[in-house]
Amino acid sequence: MSAPTTGPGGIDALIQLLAKMPGLGPRSARRAVLHLLKRRESLMEPLARALKETADAIKTCSVCHNIDTVDPCAICTDPKRNRSQICVVEEVGDLWAMDRVVGFRGLYHVLGGTLSALDGVGPQDLHIASLVERAKHVGVTEVILATNATVDGQTTAHYIADRLSDTQATISGLAHGVPMGGELDYLDEGTLATALKARKPI
Amino acid sequence: MSAPTTGPGGIDALIQLLAKMPGLGPRSARRAVLHLLKRRESLMEPLARALKETADAIKTCSVCHNIDTVDPCAICTDPKRNRSQICVVEEVGDLWAMDRVVGFRGLYHVLGGTLSALDGVGPQDLHIASLVERAKHVGVTEVILATNATVDGQTTAHYIADRLSDTQATISGLAHGVPMGGELDYLDEGTLATALKARKPI
Repeated sequence: MSAPTTGPGGIDALIQLLAKMPGLGPRSARRAVLHLLKRRESLMEPLARALKETADAIKTCSVCHNIDTVDPCAICTDPKRNRSQICVVEEVGDLWAMDRVVGFRGLYHVLGGTLSALDGVGPQDLHIASLVERAKHVGVTEVILATNATVDGQTTAHYIADRLSDTQATISGLAHGVPMGGELDYLDEGTLATALKARKPI
Repeated sequence: MSAPTTGPGGIDALIQLLAKMPGLGPRSARRAVLHLLKRRESLMEPLARALKETADAIKTCSVCHNIDTVDPCAICTDPKRNRSQICVVEEVGDLWAMDRVVGFRGLYHVLGGTLSALDGVGPQDLHIASLVERAKHVGVTEVILATNATVDGQTTAHYIADRLSDTQATISGLAHGVPMGGELDYLDEGTLATALKARKPI
C-alpha cells in the first residue's frame, strides 16, 4: 500500500483519518470514502456538520460524568427517570449499553476507569468522591455497581461498596452466571463455578 | 435497539449518520462515536474538517471522469505518467484499485458503469464518446479495457473495442484465469475453462 497517492492530499487525508476509526482499515476506509463521495449532499455534508457540531458541543456532565452536548446531561435532567437509583459504570460506553440496550431508567455515575495498582490508578483518579456525595442525598435508595466482571472492575466495586457503607442506600451488583445462550462446555471455569454457587430454585 | 435516546439529538444523529457507512452498523457506529469523542482534537475535529473540505472541493475530472479535488485530476496532469496508455475502468473505485494497489502508471478513463440492456443503460449514458476522442490522439498507443469480468463488463469491453477499431491504438484486456492463491477445487467452471483455454508454455 505504499503506492503513490492519487489526489493532491484531500481525498487521501480523508482516507487516512477514516482508517483510524475502530472497525475500519485502509481498505474499508477507501470504500467508505467512495461511498461518501457518491453521496455528497445526503451523507458527506451532513456527517461533516454533525461531527463539527458535536465536537464543538460535547461536554462532560458535572453530575454523572456522562458525555453529552448539555451539562448536566440529558439523563441527569430527565424528569421521567427514577432518581432513587444510581447505576455506577466504568466508562461512557458502559452507560450507553445499560441505557440503550438494557433500558435501565435510573440515574448513572461514570467512574472514568477502574482502580489499578499496576497502572497506578488510585481512588483520587476516579470519580468516586462525587459518587459518595451523590449517594448521601436523601432520595437515593440504591446504588447498583455495574463495573466489569474483571479483577480490576470487581476490586473497584468492593472499594466503592466500602466507601458507601455509611450511607442509607442499598448497594447491589450485577448477577454473575451463565450468559443467556451460553453453552456450558465453552464457559470458563470461573463463570461456571460462580453460576453453580449462585444457583437458584426454579 | 428502539430504546429512547440518551442525548438531545447531537450524539444520536452522529451515530445514525455513521451507521450508514459501509462496514458500520448501529453497534459499531456507536463504538466509533465513543472513539471519536475521546479523541476530539486528534481525530474528530480533523475528520470533520477533512470531510467538509473534501465535500466542498471534489469535482469530476473533465478528461477521465475520475473524482478529485482538482480538474483535470492529479493523474491527468501528472507529468511522470505514461501518456500513451489509457486504462478503461467502470468506476472510480476500480481506478483506485488499479492505481494504488497494482500501481499502473498510465492514464485512466472512468466509464461510469457498464452497458446494461436490463437496466436501460446505453452507450450514450457512459463516457464512451469522450474515450473514443481521447483514443484518437496521436500519442495514444494502447487502450487497456479493465472492465469487470462480468457479463455486462465484458459486453461493454467488446462494444468499446468495436468503437475503437479505427484508431491507431492497440486494444487489450486483462488476462483471465486462475487467481493467484486460488485453489482449483473452489473455482467456478467458467474460470477454470478460460484458464485451460488460455494455457501457456512454462
